[in-house]
Amino acid sequence: MVVKVYGPDYACPKRVIVCLIEKDIEFETVHVDGFKGEHKEAEYLKLQPFGLLPVIQDGDYTLYESRAILRYYAEKYKNQGTDLLGKTIEERGLVEQWLEVEAHNFNPPIYNLVMNLLVYPLVGLPSDQKVVQESEEKLGKVLDIYEERLSKTKYLAGDFFSLADLSHLPFGHYLMNSMGKENMVKERKHVNAWWDDISNRPSWKKVLQLYKYPM
Amino acid sequence: MVVKVYGPDYACPKRVIVCLIEKDIEFETVHVDGFKGEHKEAEYLKLQPFGLLPVIQDGDYTLYESRAILRYYAEKYKNQGTDLLGKTIEERGLVEQWLEVEAHNFNPPIYNLVMNLLVYPLVGLPSDQKVVQESEEKLGKVLDIYEERLSKTKYLAGDFFSLADLSHLPFGHYLMNSMGKENMVKERKHVNAWWDDISNRPSWKKVLQLYKYPM
Repeated sequence: MVVKVYGPDYACPKRVIVCLIEKDIEFETVHVDGFKGEHKEAEYLKLQPFGLLPVIQDGDYTLYESRAILRYYAEKYKNQGTDLLGKTIEERGLVEQWLEVEAHNFNPPIYNLVMNLLVYPLVGLPSDQKVVQESEEKLGKVLDIYEERLSKTKYLAGDFFSLADLSHLPFGHYLMNSMGKENMVKERKHVNAWWDDISNRPSWKKVLQLYKYPM
Repeated sequence: MVVKVYGPDYACPKRVIVCLIEKDIEFETVHVDGFKGEHKEAEYLKLQPFGLLPVIQDGDYTLYESRAILRYYAEKYKNQGTDLLGKTIEERGLVEQWLEVEAHNFNPPIYNLVMNLLVYPLVGLPSDQKVVQESEEKLGKVLDIYEERLSKTKYLAGDFFSLADLSHLPFGHYLMNSMGKENMVKERKHVNAWWDDISNRPSWKKVLQLYKYPM
């Protein structure tokens, strides 16, 4: 069964696609134009009532929330492609911990930076410089903790690549390529080496080659 | 091995404790006074570098982020106490989906309401009425989607109680008991029946009996 991914140009669908590639799972994509509001149309809301991207359809199984989809496929195909959950239940616990850190500590400030520095200017809305400054400060503190962690282990959950690292790729890409803030990573030695490692994985390079970011 | 839970009076540690009770896991608690800033002190930051509650210690294993801890124990003791993950990998996928919805759709507006209506007045900070109004609107829309979902299945992930429901208890309790906003639940028939069901579980009643909310 080919997995159908709705997106795919935006950051959160890319989180799912890079996982499917790591797991050697066949997929196809359905284009949804967020700038035209297609994710708020009735047909899409039947699949994802909150009007957010992505959603997947796998036969008659439908699932949304990108990090839930990651966990589902990493578990379902545990022994196919790259193992993304760790070998033991304790390693998986740390994968879950750092996946939550990505969602609750890393993502909010970087999301605010992307909205204020990239999206709002594109659609003619004003940027909030106070939010930009506060978000940059918060993100800096988060990256300081990453620097400390990555001085001890090669990846966030331990010495193995996992969902916790993978989940940083789509918004990390914005930070490193479109916002003029790449020094936040480059000036932190271990974070920089980690980013260099994970962003050079063939799976991520393939995502970037297949699907353009909208900005 | 007795699990040590740092908290326990605040909402997020309670999310962990109700899970441990459902799973029949022995635990003890370590009091951390958030109002005195004990979660920002050096000793605590060694366990949880972001300075957030809770963290658990289980022998020499340390884990933080409440929803990561839920997943760890629900998986580790899958066949002990209440099964909180569903029977199949597809059911678990839906548990993950609704657990993410709780974290990303339900929690942000209710957290804002708790801060502005309960915490800020208590510590002498001004409430932001615009944030209160916007958060109430957002939460209302989320609860409309819950109402639709719960008209089809008894619990969020299906006809079985899971981590997805359990995770709503600590902040749902504020909504129903301390903020004068309980009509948001009561006026939605299926959400109300669901809340009535999950909040009357012996595990949650025990949490409320053992640990007082700070407000």
